[in-house]
Amino acid sequence: MALQPVLIAGAWRHSKNPVGSFSAVNPTTKTPLPEQYPVSGLEDIELALQAGQGAVAELRSADSPAALVQFLDGFAKQIEARTDVLVETAVLETALPAEPRLRSVELPRTTNQLRQAAVAVRDGSWRRATIDTGSNIRSMYGPLGGPVVVLGPNNFPFAFNSVAGGDFAAAIAAGNPVIAKANPGHPGTTRILAEAAFAAVQASGLPLGMVQLIYHTPPEVGLNLVSEARIGATAFTGSKTAGLALKAAADKAGKPIYLEMSSVNPVFILPGAIRERGAAIAGELYASCSLGAGQFCTKPGIVILQQDENSEEFVTAVQSHFEQNAPGTLLNQAGPTGIAEAIATLQEHGAEIVTGGYEVAEPRFAFANTLLQVLGGRFLAHPHELQTEAFGPVSLLVIAKDITQMAEVAAQLEGNLTGTIYSHSQDADDTAYAQIEPVLRGKVGRLLNDKMPTGVAVVPAMNHGGPFPATGHPGFTAVGIPASLLRFAALHGYDNVRHHRLPPELQDKNPNGRMWRFIDGSWTQEDAGK
Amino acid sequence: MALQPVLIAGAWRHSKNPVGSFSAVNPTTKTPLPEQYPVSGLEDIELALQAGQGAVAELRSADSPAALVQFLDGFAKQIEARTDVLVETAVLETALPAEPRLRSVELPRTTNQLRQAAVAVRDGSWRRATIDTGSNIRSMYGPLGGPVVVLGPNNFPFAFNSVAGGDFAAAIAAGNPVIAKANPGHPGTTRILAEAAFAAVQASGLPLGMVQLIYHTPPEVGLNLVSEARIGATAFTGSKTAGLALKAAADKAGKPIYLEMSSVNPVFILPGAIRERGAAIAGELYASCSLGAGQFCTKPGIVILQQDENSEEFVTAVQSHFEQNAPGTLLNQAGPTGIAEAIATLQEHGAEIVTGGYEVAEPRFAFANTLLQVLGGRFLAHPHELQTEAFGPVSLLVIAKDITQMAEVAAQLEGNLTGTIYSHSQDADDTAYAQIEPVLRGKVGRLLNDKMPTGVAVVPAMNHGGPFPATGHPGFTAVGIPASLLRFAALHGYDNVRHHRLPPELQDKNPNGRMWRFIDGSWTQEDAGK
Repeated sequence: MALQPVLIAGAWRHSKNPVGSFSAVNPTTKTPLPEQYPVSGLEDIELALQAGQGAVAELRSADSPAALVQFLDGFAKQIEARTDVLVETAVLETALPAEPRLRSVELPRTTNQLRQAAVAVRDGSWRRATIDTGSNIRSMYGPLGGPVVVLGPNNFPFAFNSVAGGDFAAAIAAGNPVIAKANPGHPGTTRILAEAAFAAVQASGLPLGMVQLIYHTPPEVGLNLVSEARIGATAFTGSKTAGLALKAAADKAGKPIYLEMSSVNPVFILPGAIRERGAAIAGELYASCSLGAGQFCTKPGIVILQQDENSEEFVTAVQSHFEQNAPGTLLNQAGPTGIAEAIATLQEHGAEIVTGGYEVAEPRFAFANTLLQVLGGRFLAHPHELQTEAFGPVSLLVIAKDITQMAEVAAQLEGNLTGTIYSHSQDADDTAYAQIEPVLRGKVGRLLNDKMPTGVAVVPAMNHGGPFPATGHPGFTAVGIPASLLRFAALHGYDNVRHHRLPPELQDKNPNGRMWRFIDGSWTQEDAGK
Repeated sequence: MALQPVLIAGAWRHSKNPVGSFSAVNPTTKTPLPEQYPVSGLEDIELALQAGQGAVAELRSADSPAALVQFLDGFAKQIEARTDVLVETAVLETALPAEPRLRSVELPRTTNQLRQAAVAVRDGSWRRATIDTGSNIRSMYGPLGGPVVVLGPNNFPFAFNSVAGGDFAAAIAAGNPVIAKANPGHPGTTRILAEAAFAAVQASGLPLGMVQLIYHTPPEVGLNLVSEARIGATAFTGSKTAGLALKAAADKAGKPIYLEMSSVNPVFILPGAIRERGAAIAGELYASCSLGAGQFCTKPGIVILQQDENSEEFVTAVQSHFEQNAPGTLLNQAGPTGIAEAIATLQEHGAEIVTGGYEVAEPRFAFANTLLQVLGGRFLAHPHELQTEAFGPVSLLVIAKDITQMAEVAAQLEGNLTGTIYSHSQDADDTAYAQIEPVLRGKVGRLLNDKMPTGVAVVPAMNHGGPFPATGHPGFTAVGIPASLLRFAALHGYDNVRHHRLPPELQDKNPNGRMWRFIDGSWTQEDAGK
């Protein structure tokens, strides 16, 4: 069967000397799907880099804000027009539920992100234009000068897709072409999204090389790509192993790389909360752990509580939820295999299985809902190993002897995307909160109270980031517009540049009347020099 | 002679098992100065890390904004009280002129930076507090959770000093303790600044471990320090060789590192500008190249012009300035040695000496003012080697055959801090400008018109940064408050956190009535939820 074409240099074309081929696997049957996709080698990469650089040069002279807005809005519409086939294909490739997950949650979220990115481009405030009229020095964020490489994860076929998701939207909105590498778990979904994107590119007047897609590469070709002098930056969401290899290559070349890697998302449940509403929290915990079959980067993988007269009942309640529900279908064979390995590591270091712990013997990829527990003292003896992420419906309860030990556990945490504290609705847990929160704050990107971390709202204040190794840099977020655009931007200063040569965003007159600019120390929508 | 004490863990104390000692050298006589300073090993580092982490923990519970403001303002006063001895010591150690450079320019700039940092802390707008009232998600920049390591350069003993300069001020203002490593070229100046800092710390109520100082380390100890899990980040200004080694170590550990490394600061002088005011530009070029004996990170190291009926006269005028003035004294023996090596590299690849090219035979460290030239075609054949930085009064003229070739030279430039275009005061050079500027824009942090790049104003819009290898990340600036603080900050998100538990900056009420916050999509100084 013929290989599906790649999208390079403004055309769907045969991969040039592909180094192999692959197909997606239906997770519910473990059988390969019919379409064959190429594994690209260096020749496809070289063409894509040239076309990406060509697009950068074309963009410099284009009326890019208007074209970018048209593209982003148009792409959202093109996606909506393909809703049925997208959902159908994604179900086949990922086994995620069509409803509500794919059709009613993730697809609207994806188009919403694109439209928010369009608003950010139109508005321009994301550039943080800064004008000092006294010295006539001006600066703002601009594009990186090279295409952004986006490598998306397997667990969100739409919203984090390399050719349609949050990183894609942010990179494009900041004015950079994108070279997308599909996640090989859902190439068909990605192909349809890229067709939608390319249709929108053609209608927008943007350079045709603005959006490119390859499906897969051998690891060494991926390392070559992210360390190429001609790229602007890389965005990666996926495993820590792959992420760290890409980071090493990009770092060595001085190329920015933004990584979203592993996170165990600690949840501290204080004694007053368990006493007050333990049953409800047990239900919330299970619901959060089983969302997407536990394959969320914000899944609560470690739950810390104090051993007392209520904790045993709480554990039993959680166990009951884990046992009474069938586990979801995992994305691929790496799911059950990786979970089993992670659980083995946890067990080797003292964690005991409360329930689950085995791959489900069914025709689909699945692993039993699994709850483990370990005493706080034991955790403190092997904190690194006991933070091993199991990417599935698995959580580890850490039973501390007292609040001080809970704080000691917090102090041993590695960098995480989120950290959560449940406390009594009145002030019964305030002392404990004050002991734990300052320690936890520095370990996580987003600190939550009284709710599970799996929901990631796409709002300006969202922080979907965190200290290493959750990400590669603690100052950036992958979700939340306009902040997510800043990852794909360079700071452009202008010193004594003649007024008519300045980009419109830095000229005295506010170019659209509503762009927020930081002029002489104040944020304003007014013109400069007034 | 006894070794000078280091400042670690809140006290001036003997270095613990130093691995060596050193003294500064008077550049005007090439003779060592009397004071002996320790080379610290891992034991000093360990103590400093513990104390730095202790300071982080203490800060969490302190009323830190007020104490930080008191420290920064107090430190500026403490420096002013020591003006005479600082200038005297810096003259001995660096041979930079007391007037106007050290006393009337660099010292006031240093205290000004500290006071601007104090204003930024008091004001709080640097945190870019973002509040979404609908979702009750809030975020802002906060400290990194570990001390910041600052390694300062040799060429600005005050304004970029590791214990008093811009990086120091930014790291402290963002709420981080600092572990400063002196530049071994001016340990005495650094000691006095650290005494001033420590006096200010003691008067401020900040943790005593907020400011620490060691003087020197073997390279492997430095690499160990910047990759330590307990630090927050590193700021380095210095050579590319040292910077890349530190970057590799920090990157591997996932620790942010901000580097300001080499930059040749290309200056494009368009034909109309030479025709119109060539003699004046020749004078400006010499003045900029010889500032601080050419030891500025923004010195124009490459000047690109078009060969025509006026270019020869311009080169002669520049040559005349270079020949008629005595070269300044260089900071150390590495100065003339490094310059000679760089010039040899330039010559090997086709550059010819117009004037200079030799170390001055005097008791002081000095190298003749040196002008080189190379044809554009030759430059394009060896663009990498011909961008070798010579850190001294040296500049390379690139003589292009036409504007297209000037643009081709621009396309081959590596990342630089600055890029400059001189053009005719009317529109005679507009076509050439339009051809070169878009290419140059992406290669530099700060783009200038009609002025030399050596002045770096400390204003909010300043960008003293640029693409790799000028720095390690194109999105940050080392100069300009409040933007420079963002390097030493982590993004802290709060999701559904109870209102009274939020930091004051994220509560509904504006904590000081003047902090700019991004609330529901608009920048405002009002309270939230109004």
